[in-house]
Amino acid sequence: MSRPQPLSGFPELLPRQRIVEQQVVDHLRRAFELHGFANLQTRAVEPMDQLLRKGETSKEVYVLRRLQADARDTSDAELGLHFDLTVPFARYVLENAGKLNFPFRRYQIQPVWRGERPQGGRYREFWQADIDIVDQGELPAHYEAEVALVVADALKDLPIPKVRMHVNNRKLSQGFYQGLGIADTEEALRIIDKLDKIGPDATAKLLVDGVDATPEQAEACLQLAAISSEDTSFVARIRALGVSDPLLEEGLTELAAVVDAVATAAPGFVVADMKIARGLDYYTGTVYEVFIEGEEHLGSVCSGGRYDRLASDGKNAYPGVGLSIGVSRLLVPLLQAGRLDATREVPTCVLVALANEEDRPAATALAQRLRARGIPTQLSPSAAKFGKQIKFADKRGIPFVLFTTDEGTQMKDIRSGDQLTVDVDTWNPPAEDLHPRIITE
Amino acid sequence: MSRPQPLSGFPELLPRQRIVEQQVVDHLRRAFELHGFANLQTRAVEPMDQLLRKGETSKEVYVLRRLQADARDTSDAELGLHFDLTVPFARYVLENAGKLNFPFRRYQIQPVWRGERPQGGRYREFWQADIDIVDQGELPAHYEAEVALVVADALKDLPIPKVRMHVNNRKLSQGFYQGLGIADTEEALRIIDKLDKIGPDATAKLLVDGVDATPEQAEACLQLAAISSEDTSFVARIRALGVSDPLLEEGLTELAAVVDAVATAAPGFVVADMKIARGLDYYTGTVYEVFIEGEEHLGSVCSGGRYDRLASDGKNAYPGVGLSIGVSRLLVPLLQAGRLDATREVPTCVLVALANEEDRPAATALAQRLRARGIPTQLSPSAAKFGKQIKFADKRGIPFVLFTTDEGTQMKDIRSGDQLTVDVDTWNPPAEDLHPRIITE
Repeated sequence: MSRPQPLSGFPELLPRQRIVEQQVVDHLRRAFELHGFANLQTRAVEPMDQLLRKGETSKEVYVLRRLQADARDTSDAELGLHFDLTVPFARYVLENAGKLNFPFRRYQIQPVWRGERPQGGRYREFWQADIDIVDQGELPAHYEAEVALVVADALKDLPIPKVRMHVNNRKLSQGFYQGLGIADTEEALRIIDKLDKIGPDATAKLLVDGVDATPEQAEACLQLAAISSEDTSFVARIRALGVSDPLLEEGLTELAAVVDAVATAAPGFVVADMKIARGLDYYTGTVYEVFIEGEEHLGSVCSGGRYDRLASDGKNAYPGVGLSIGVSRLLVPLLQAGRLDATREVPTCVLVALANEEDRPAATALAQRLRARGIPTQLSPSAAKFGKQIKFADKRGIPFVLFTTDEGTQMKDIRSGDQLTVDVDTWNPPAEDLHPRIITE
Repeated sequence: MSRPQPLSGFPELLPRQRIVEQQVVDHLRRAFELHGFANLQTRAVEPMDQLLRKGETSKEVYVLRRLQADARDTSDAELGLHFDLTVPFARYVLENAGKLNFPFRRYQIQPVWRGERPQGGRYREFWQADIDIVDQGELPAHYEAEVALVVADALKDLPIPKVRMHVNNRKLSQGFYQGLGIADTEEALRIIDKLDKIGPDATAKLLVDGVDATPEQAEACLQLAAISSEDTSFVARIRALGVSDPLLEEGLTELAAVVDAVATAAPGFVVADMKIARGLDYYTGTVYEVFIEGEEHLGSVCSGGRYDRLASDGKNAYPGVGLSIGVSRLLVPLLQAGRLDATREVPTCVLVALANEEDRPAATALAQRLRARGIPTQLSPSAAKFGKQIKFADKRGIPFVLFTTDEGTQMKDIRSGDQLTVDVDTWNPPAEDLHPRIITE
């Protein structure tokens, strides 16, 4: 068997990179739980008819087939891998509605799959960390601010570049287009979504060609898209454009409330940005995109919105609002560029060295006493020369080596060379050495 | 959209069940890290030629197809979902050999997929928690005892029924069959693997029919399979059967060493059991199966073995030994039977009640002060009547409700009804209320 090659679009991490990712995910989990979100995991697969119901993304589904499936065997519904965590969650809510308490808040950290062409920053398998709040019947608007604040809190102390949340409201944009006299407001929204990629001139042309806008209407759409503010001043600037429509008013009120609440509780985190549209077509109100400041061209590292019509069982609607952090999208480039690293590649804090192989049972018992007090410990692979055992620790970044001499049990800090006689039942490493830590470049 | 139905073979958990599973997985992770195992995650997919190389299980692969794949597009290798975590790990080791330090120890907790017919205790998607130690060239035998001890440690304090590890060695069995004069020892092993399912008479018949055993040879195979012991006394009992073979001797020595080391460090955990064979054909020495005591008929909840020939790049071999805990197999039946539950269905410890909706920003700030000290806190969905807000907490098992009166900030334990004036910057819940806990029936 020759050496296998990586699969394009399926990033995998080395152990020390994975330690960074794991600690980031732990941090997110802790933040979500501090805000009362319960964890869920849904299966990787959904029936194809579910996956094909909504949005552009559904075209990129991976379809499954059992290798042993019998051609005559039609008992299995056709299954595909989920392409996000929102569609499976909406299905889970419908399936289990009778057993859940609403409003229901959950977080979910799982991989998703998209069968698209791999390219810079795009993966075929990647991890997302989602939070959502779903209610039965009506979803109070204050949750639109709350999920933004949870994400602000979760991203706050991570070793990542500064990020900022751009927020808009689809009612605002579509109401504005409607007030202008554009009929196909959904298509207009899809065209505006391309603005950052194709520029204003091409966007204006698309609006004229695609939704029969007059050049003046197209220009007004671009004027709207150019408006942004860190406070609610966007409202007056939009009103100054002279368009009026009831849906626009609704959107203005909702967006102002979100921006006001988020700016108050997390100053500097949010910006109202009228060019945010979002590709997925299940959003019905507030939409969010989080960018690394100064690197907006890399695309959003977190996004989401409010969806009022994703889940309904005929009797009840289950409107929701949520945000999805692109864990792989955020971390893989930083890890691959070496901008994030771990202090060591193993959890091990102490290596127990062996003078000879017969000592292994005694050394095993010694190691277990350290573990009982929460100190990650492993044994030397062999009773090699002491220098070789030190090198084993050094190569992995294990800071301490324990060994026994006539003077008793010795603990050596292999970085400083300091050596102390210790009592294994009371010795503790410095707090910063107990577990690997994340270091930034 | 009507209510979706569960997919057979793809178990999903309710929030309070997931809290149990999450805490069990956290416990396993902590145990593995205390023993110096670093975490890895491999992609869900492998090229089909990799997946079809080894073992019975490979027949149950789920094959993937991109919905948008072009029939003329042959650039993508055919991919399938992994059916275990050992094959992907062996591939990862080969692919990254130059960047890893050997012996390399890792744990991996991920779902695996098998496209088999779902039936009692069998799933199409299920979670496994694997540990493995892989070396370059030669793998020291002491790791065969070590991985068993790590699993003993990891399973020790879990809220599960008592388990016991049954261990055998393929060299021992195959050497014995060889010494008897049976040529196809691998097939003989596969037949013995069925003993518990089909009984001794049918097994003897299969041996006569399948590997040309004489009735006497078949009887000797059954005599071997009947031997078990909690210490190394199995050695003398096997010798008493009067078969001699160099491979048998090797197996006896290796198995005696494992049983001796494990029985010393974890008394009562291990039993040498000559009928253990294991279905996967990549094992070459020690094999393990862990059963719930008294419920061996449910099948093993953890299994593994030593594999000397799974990974090789022509220049180097990468022999390994590992064990895989069937997280879903162990927990899903206990959860579905209600034998394990959580004290509450949310992480939330404190609900902040609202006197009116205008208080939400102030309540948000108050909640954040509790969170800053690690106390999971959420706000009331609305400023409903106080009794309704208490009911909201009660339905979810949230133990404390915080609210503000003229006499200051009040904390109410809704179980006892006790109410205290508190300082939110110093108040702490009893330690057992901070997070949900697992309760057993």
